[in-house]
Amino acid sequence: MTHKIAILGASGYTGAELVRLIATHGGMEIVALGANSKAGQSMAEVFPHLRHLDLPDLVTVDEIDFATVDLCFCALPHKTSQEVIKNLPRDLKIVDLSADFRLRDPSAYQAWYGNAHAATEIQKEAVYGLTEFYRDEIRNARLVAGTGCNAATGQYALRPLISGELIDLDEIILDLKCGVTGAGRSLKENLLHAELSEGTNAYAVGGTHRHLGEFDQEFSTLAGRPVEVQFTPHLLPMNRGILATVYVHGDPDAIHAALSEAYLSEPFLEVLPFGETPSTHQVRGSNFCHIGVTGDRKPGRAIVVAALDNLTKGSSGQALQNANLMLGEDETRGLMLAPCFP
Amino acid sequence: MTHKIAILGASGYTGAELVRLIATHGGMEIVALGANSKAGQSMAEVFPHLRHLDLPDLVTVDEIDFATVDLCFCALPHKTSQEVIKNLPRDLKIVDLSADFRLRDPSAYQAWYGNAHAATEIQKEAVYGLTEFYRDEIRNARLVAGTGCNAATGQYALRPLISGELIDLDEIILDLKCGVTGAGRSLKENLLHAELSEGTNAYAVGGTHRHLGEFDQEFSTLAGRPVEVQFTPHLLPMNRGILATVYVHGDPDAIHAALSEAYLSEPFLEVLPFGETPSTHQVRGSNFCHIGVTGDRKPGRAIVVAALDNLTKGSSGQALQNANLMLGEDETRGLMLAPCFP
Amino acid sequence: MTHKIAILGASGYTGAELVRLIATHGGMEIVALGANSKAGQSMAEVFPHLRHLDLPDLVTVDEIDFATVDLCFCALPHKTSQEVIKNLPRDLKIVDLSADFRLRDPSAYQAWYGNAHAATEIQKEAVYGLTEFYRDEIRNARLVAGTGCNAATGQYALRPLISGELIDLDEIILDLKCGVTGAGRSLKENLLHAELSEGTNAYAVGGTHRHLGEFDQEFSTLAGRPVEVQFTPHLLPMNRGILATVYVHGDPDAIHAALSEAYLSEPFLEVLPFGETPSTHQVRGSNFCHIGVTGDRKPGRAIVVAALDNLTKGSSGQALQNANLMLGEDETRGLMLAPCFP
Amino acid sequence: MTHKIAILGASGYTGAELVRLIATHGGMEIVALGANSKAGQSMAEVFPHLRHLDLPDLVTVDEIDFATVDLCFCALPHKTSQEVIKNLPRDLKIVDLSADFRLRDPSAYQAWYGNAHAATEIQKEAVYGLTEFYRDEIRNARLVAGTGCNAATGQYALRPLISGELIDLDEIILDLKCGVTGAGRSLKENLLHAELSEGTNAYAVGGTHRHLGEFDQEFSTLAGRPVEVQFTPHLLPMNRGILATVYVHGDPDAIHAALSEAYLSEPFLEVLPFGETPSTHQVRGSNFCHIGVTGDRKPGRAIVVAALDNLTKGSSGQALQNANLMLGEDETRGLMLAPCFP
Repeated sequence: MTHKIAILGASGYTGAELVRLIATHGGMEIVALGANSKAGQSMAEVFPHLRHLDLPDLVTVDEIDFATVDLCFCALPHKTSQEVIKNLPRDLKIVDLSADFRLRDPSAYQAWYGNAHAATEIQKEAVYGLTEFYRDEIRNARLVAGTGCNAATGQYALRPLISGELIDLDEIILDLKCGVTGAGRSLKENLLHAELSEGTNAYAVGGTHRHLGEFDQEFSTLAGRPVEVQFTPHLLPMNRGILATVYVHGDPDAIHAALSEAYLSEPFLEVLPFGETPSTHQVRGSNFCHIGVTGDRKPGRAIVVAALDNLTKGSSGQALQNANLMLGEDETRGLMLAPCFP
Repeated sequence: MTHKIAILGASGYTGAELVRLIATHGGMEIVALGANSKAGQSMAEVFPHLRHLDLPDLVTVDEIDFATVDLCFCALPHKTSQEVIKNLPRDLKIVDLSADFRLRDPSAYQAWYGNAHAATEIQKEAVYGLTEFYRDEIRNARLVAGTGCNAATGQYALRPLISGELIDLDEIILDLKCGVTGAGRSLKENLLHAELSEGTNAYAVGGTHRHLGEFDQEFSTLAGRPVEVQFTPHLLPMNRGILATVYVHGDPDAIHAALSEAYLSEPFLEVLPFGETPSTHQVRGSNFCHIGVTGDRKPGRAIVVAALDNLTKGSSGQALQNANLMLGEDETRGLMLAPCFP
Repeated sequence: MTHKIAILGASGYTGAELVRLIATHGGMEIVALGANSKAGQSMAEVFPHLRHLDLPDLVTVDEIDFATVDLCFCALPHKTSQEVIKNLPRDLKIVDLSADFRLRDPSAYQAWYGNAHAATEIQKEAVYGLTEFYRDEIRNARLVAGTGCNAATGQYALRPLISGELIDLDEIILDLKCGVTGAGRSLKENLLHAELSEGTNAYAVGGTHRHLGEFDQEFSTLAGRPVEVQFTPHLLPMNRGILATVYVHGDPDAIHAALSEAYLSEPFLEVLPFGETPSTHQVRGSNFCHIGVTGDRKPGRAIVVAALDNLTKGSSGQALQNANLMLGEDETRGLMLAPCFP
Repeated sequence: MTHKIAILGASGYTGAELVRLIATHGGMEIVALGANSKAGQSMAEVFPHLRHLDLPDLVTVDEIDFATVDLCFCALPHKTSQEVIKNLPRDLKIVDLSADFRLRDPSAYQAWYGNAHAATEIQKEAVYGLTEFYRDEIRNARLVAGTGCNAATGQYALRPLISGELIDLDEIILDLKCGVTGAGRSLKENLLHAELSEGTNAYAVGGTHRHLGEFDQEFSTLAGRPVEVQFTPHLLPMNRGILATVYVHGDPDAIHAALSEAYLSEPFLEVLPFGETPSTHQVRGSNFCHIGVTGDRKPGRAIVVAALDNLTKGSSGQALQNANLMLGEDETRGLMLAPCFP
């Protein structure tokens, strides 16, 4: 059986990544590609690397007949996504890759994103899309809200430690290193090759990055009390990849054991032997997340490092994994691509 | 039916690329990984990006029981390859990725490689592995000699022009731009990140690059007279990719028509609309080759630009394509991965 | 004696490069920085790497009192430059870095740039800024037109061969590899890190690049007959640097001798020993140009490779070199910075 | 007056960087370049970017007549340096760039470096080379021990906070991002372009990096009690630059004030306005260090980010700064090069 798929926001990087993954899925047919600003163009014009595929031309969202669509991926910008989704059929299965339906509390949404939510009714339906921790809900969901790419990485490193009560909740520091595609295909000066290559900087320093809304929501729920982590992202001269270096107070061996046990059966989460550290090179272009645990020379301190590809496990791969569940497919279908190294 | 596969030289980049491609092939099982210098290690130690796969540990070539192997990929260094292959069973199907069996004339081999060939009898069996032009021979071959990555790129741009008698054979210039993995995983100063990133240089200038042996052999055979092209490779700060800019004297429209017709049914060779030019970004990690033709302002001059990924279409992808033919599989099996962009 | 300097277009890369070079010149004081779109900002906001310098804030061009200025660098976009310069005092010394005054023939200007020239009277005054070949004229010039960065590189490789009648004028191919800063600080999709890093492509293929106007003008003048070269630029994933690989018909030894002799006393042009090839790494951030000559295996063919930094010797360094001449300073003052490698 | 300079270890990156800086110093003449493994070669062969300079050929250390040398830079590998220096004249002024004389306590040296120190008598003479904090001692020193590049970056961020008693000494985390030249010109697999570009990883996780020996020594001395920081370096795909992201418990405003005051008169240390963050792009190729302070959303937490170029301010620039002091020169001579951006 072949599922009919629509992708909205097909002219962005996460849209292209969805097409790349679906190309070898075998059980999905892309019937519509929406991209208002580039409607009328062929996908080969917008993304020449996909020219070998037989794909529909880009159209506006209005032109799509959703009655023929089994599942719709929304890879639209934040805020646009809620406006679009609230006008889609209410029985259409949707995987949203934007930030719009991640936060369950509308006031938290407003605090982090600066505007009132325009589709609060729909937000109630949304399931948070961190597959490994919401698998059953996702399987039955109509609308899944894909996580932030940084938020996914940090949660893979931390959730079992929080739920296992293994760490001091007031002393959690996430220092993240992110590739540039996390910022999308947007024309900003700091994303130019000339500005970005051969150097690095921190940004959104001091607790202002929006993915903190997700950390707060998820970690506080897990802990049963408010948890606020420190989180500093850095922009690196690389296209794909997130490396989260997480500093915690806790017993390194217990932490390694908890992560190993939690992810033992997970097809995409690999916990390395104790003392080894992952590299974003080793997950590039794949849906895998590698996690390493090391003890510090200071007793009672551990460093957990997690690496994934922001475009794959951090967004489009996660989205496909969730779509597989929603459609009754094998969860890993189309996602077993080995990382592209070197 | 699952074919039993051995890979010799599994600790190099082309070896790893073979494993990456076979990982989603579905009809092949890797039963042996040979790498004398790293024998005893697991593949996860040598290439951590492959850690999710269930692979045999690395062994020496001597430890492999070839009786259980249906096809062997040899991804060994030049000269080593002929020494190893001459001691392998004479009925074993082999796809060699080295330079050792590309040149049919032993004296040409000696001239370009500086040593007498140690397995001239076996060389007689070898079929040149440029799939699209030797498909039938490859299907029936025991030993296929993978082409040089630069040699493949240049031939895709030029063969139909030569066989169609469309260009001046004395005025052919190939200016190639190559990514660094073409040089393998070797510890050389000029391959260090610090020496290579953010700059470029030509090398083997003036007609000294060994892939010229292949160009001479193939183009002279095609033309029925000696053909010597000019060929200058350049090392670029990128890991994968070859861009061949080929300058010829001939009619641009006729050239475009000839290439379009020649590759009309080819699954991996894409001729762009007249006047468009390809980019190595658009083929990265894939088995596709994009080819563009443009006329120059000087009448009777054309520029043909061809782009492929040296590790895939230029070596390991080509090798798998040939292996599929030799094993009676669909030629494209395992090779339809979309390029990994960005 | 300290010369008072104004820089128009100070918010672009060539503007910043001028400030970088002047910072250690010792005989120049920057009294005005013009940048209409960023007027009111400090240079530290626009270019934080210059924050240690005591510089005036950015202003609009109208706000500058040119009566106090000894020499003005115009690093404005093409077309804007002529509009601005025609309104500047007619006795102000100007070094223009745009394309506006490079072509002596207004019809050639219109053909390459698509618009009528708005300051043809001023154009008559302009001296072409290729220092080594127009030194005396520059010394006495009021207005010097900086060359195109590609045009400079190609001319360094070719001028002595043309004036020496050493090569076939109908068979000249320039294959150029350019870093991304050649395109300026402009927000274009193909200049994003995600689109550019780890790959390459040709552009303006077939004789459409505007720097051909300069090649045509200069080479035809030198040869005393029309000369049209073939010229294909490529965009490389690096910030600075141009490598010109020039294919000619001629005697390699005579070519090497001619270049060596021509540049024997030049402080910035280094001809390498015969058979060696330069690298853009080796000139990064400096005003040097390295040139190598190699013979091809085809008799009577030579390859000349020239490397320079497009922001320095290709534009702002050249501009400062010319300004030194115009101001009676030592030509090399402020320009002896060693290349920044690695 | 021109000082006669020798550089030992001239074939490495810090050696080349010393030559680059001295090239525009004006008061130094390089009279000897030592490099045992490349003795007999010219500097132009080893570092072609320095070919325009009139430099002596490389020689073995034994061939150098130190009687004619005013000051010797030792840019040799760790352990080799102490062996060589103990055999140099006891009145020769030396700036050592290795790790050999940084740690005052021989047992600390042995603990971090794994071998007994071979020149403990000389070690007693050594002054720690962090210029801004040991300026007077350096001025009178015979032997200055250059700091580790990571150690310098971290200390610039932290020393005024520790001496000002502004932070909790038990909760200091330094997350460092380092360019690849910090590892020198060594042929290691992980330093290859193919392995390093487009990805990142942590290394020496958990408190095993040798620069911790310097942090421990300096911070404990400052605090008057043992201080152990957490320190995790990361390797980034860039050639130059260190970004230290330092997490502390303390009042952000007081921290910013303390840093601003401490570095008010320092020519190379720039404290940014509160809330701004530095970038390694902005210091590349220069001797400047940019420092930013931001408060976290968690009260009482601050993030200090420091950026410098490891080859310049982190090693060779620092070395030249110290040499200037030792020779009675202006401390900033030869070091006011503006950063090379982009």
